Amino acid sequence: MVSKSMYALGAQPSGIRELFEFGRQRAKEVGAENVFDFSLGNPSIPAPGMVAEAISKTLTEVSPVAVHGYTSAAGSDACRDAIAENLNSRYSTGYTRNNVFITCGAAPALVATFRALADDDGGSEFIVIAPFFPEYRVFIGNAGGKPVIVPPDTDRFQIDFNALETAINERTAAVLINSPNNPSGVVYTEGTIKMLAKLLEEKSREFGHPIFLVSDEPYRELVYGDVQVPFVPNYYDNTIVCYSFSKSLSLPGERIGYVLVPDSVEDARTVFLAVAGSARSMGHVCAPSLMQHVITACINLVPDVAVYQRNANLLYDALTSYGYNCAKPDGAFYLFFEAPCGISAPEFSDFAKERYNVLVVPGDSFGCPNWLRLSYCVETERIKNALPRLKQIIDHLKEK
Amino acid sequence: MVSKSMYALGAQPSGIRELFEFGRQRAKEVGAENVFDFSLGNPSIPAPGMVAEAISKTLTEVSPVAVHGYTSAAGSDACRDAIAENLNSRYSTGYTRNNVFITCGAAPALVATFRALADDDGGSEFIVIAPFFPEYRVFIGNAGGKPVIVPPDTDRFQIDFNALETAINERTAAVLINSPNNPSGVVYTEGTIKMLAKLLEEKSREFGHPIFLVSDEPYRELVYGDVQVPFVPNYYDNTIVCYSFSKSLSLPGERIGYVLVPDSVEDARTVFLAVAGSARSMGHVCAPSLMQHVITACINLVPDVAVYQRNANLLYDALTSYGYNCAKPDGAFYLFFEAPCGISAPEFSDFAKERYNVLVVPGDSFGCPNWLRLSYCVETERIKNALPRLKQIIDHLKEK
Repeated sequence: MVSKSMYALGAQPSGIRELFEFGRQRAKEVGAENVFDFSLGNPSIPAPGMVAEAISKTLTEVSPVAVHGYTSAAGSDACRDAIAENLNSRYSTGYTRNNVFITCGAAPALVATFRALADDDGGSEFIVIAPFFPEYRVFIGNAGGKPVIVPPDTDRFQIDFNALETAINERTAAVLINSPNNPSGVVYTEGTIKMLAKLLEEKSREFGHPIFLVSDEPYRELVYGDVQVPFVPNYYDNTIVCYSFSKSLSLPGERIGYVLVPDSVEDARTVFLAVAGSARSMGHVCAPSLMQHVITACINLVPDVAVYQRNANLLYDALTSYGYNCAKPDGAFYLFFEAPCGISAPEFSDFAKERYNVLVVPGDSFGCPNWLRLSYCVETERIKNALPRLKQIIDHLKEK
Repeated sequence: MVSKSMYALGAQPSGIRELFEFGRQRAKEVGAENVFDFSLGNPSIPAPGMVAEAISKTLTEVSPVAVHGYTSAAGSDACRDAIAENLNSRYSTGYTRNNVFITCGAAPALVATFRALADDDGGSEFIVIAPFFPEYRVFIGNAGGKPVIVPPDTDRFQIDFNALETAINERTAAVLINSPNNPSGVVYTEGTIKMLAKLLEEKSREFGHPIFLVSDEPYRELVYGDVQVPFVPNYYDNTIVCYSFSKSLSLPGERIGYVLVPDSVEDARTVFLAVAGSARSMGHVCAPSLMQHVITACINLVPDVAVYQRNANLLYDALTSYGYNCAKPDGAFYLFFEAPCGISAPEFSDFAKERYNVLVVPGDSFGCPNWLRLSYCVETERIKNALPRLKQIIDHLKEK
């Protein structure tokens, strides 16, 4: 009398978690300084000082009943206004609080969105473009939908439009994108977004219903140099944005993010209410209330990505010079590289782990076999110390 | 291409919310002092001062990366240990962190539990004893289960065991109880819990599988005088507890609670992992991390229920003297009373609302028609000012 599917999900931790646990264990044996754990995407930049200030100020100025009390399910008016105004000032949009549903992070935002867009009778398809965050499969499954995977474009990590066009059919509810991308670290160009919008407009017409574009954007602000992240709703009307403050404000454990349903979305109010209903069905009551105060105060902070950029450059230059084939990182905090010398990504990961205590995640679960993800949201010193090992690994493999 | 069922859930706010919104609107017209809103169960006792102290101390002593970082999905070791030790010291149990899965409040704890206990093929039945929190229907539905309602025992608001026995069959996955009860304010006696345990043991044997008892206990600590709340897992092995710190620490907006799966539960580890898997499928990553620090520090605080008790006594004595038939409140912060003079509960609610600006919730959605819920988690002054109106209402109805 226990759900087999839920047991399977709970008993089978992700490969990423398993690597992380291996690293913790190995650190006890050989010392933490000798283990190079690049498995997890846990921000290493501390939350800006203003976060602690906002917390203190809120606790001083607002009554505890108001600070810690329920807000509306969609969030407090103040926080929803702040989010809408922040987007309006940056992207020349005209959002109001009525477009914003605040959630306990991007993960439940995605689940609520998929469930809202899935037909009650099942059979809705959600197209996922590889490489992708592995939990998408779980979230789409929870909504009774079917994930349809578009293979990766490993030359540029943009979109293989021929494969995407083939994947779209009358059952397609939405296409899911994630840019800056986990795991590739690549940002979709404006050209890519324009082509995507054009294709989805054509296909929506062809099948007589909107094909929604769900844009999962937790890394939106984590980009380097002059890289621009196109704001997707400005290119395609039927875009729904799922966002998290986990990375931009380094608050991953606090669980706060949102779903944005612009008025340009067909039947926008219906979609918004379906998102609200879906959240309700999962026991969402409101996002953490103190954090809603924090976001209201800190929404305009810009993350200092200097350390991530330094790490990215260091790694990319070094690994490329050693002979690794790397995707050039535009943002997020991931370097994606190909398993060298004809071995598979899991073989590479095992070899690096066992022989060199270097932990990197095989791309198989991201829908991109033969590639590996290195999370560089760590201190630069760790990267520097790991570089000789990454060189030894490829040299060793070349000799084989 | 939008889910009809999710839209329906989002578009149809609960009757409680509608009353609350009516009250806000009416307050603008006639002044807040002239509207007596007893609709919502939003604690009016502020969080204890120690909560703000624990927040400050955490922000001072722990690095921001650790304070706001991800914890394990089940929660930090420290917080799970604190919860287990608190229960052990109060109830002579032997729990460890491995029995505790921390959630974003009781609502997602219940949803995760129902989904974990529901057969993947559908058809699992969950027995709900009236009167009950209306969202149970939504949560059970989300798990693909079927709610089976046992009618209320309106004499004592304990359990109608004949009706319960009839309701149990081979498809019964679990029985759900909520004591201290929302909306009746009544606590199940030790005698009730013992009879329930005996019946479920017999029925588990009869049907050859455990019938779980899900005990929803957000009001566990909110009881008056010498009322004792039996700790249910000590009476029935296959008990799973869903708890929230919303009421006991007045932190409803912060979304923190837990699922407790004792080792006495059959296949306890399997059930625990199914709860974890269910949470994962809904995008649970961890409970808010700063609040986990707060709970760790504040777990042993005892709520000061004096104001609730004063309100309860005041209301019960006055309403009874006016001629209302009231359930004697043992705890929580609800007074449940019968619609007087032969009118229906919705008629009473409308009449009280329209003519006297007194907002009380009809019991229909709680599975208890003809009764009404009055939430007295408000300032005592509000109660005092409302009493003459409550007298006028019943006098007016008697004259009709």
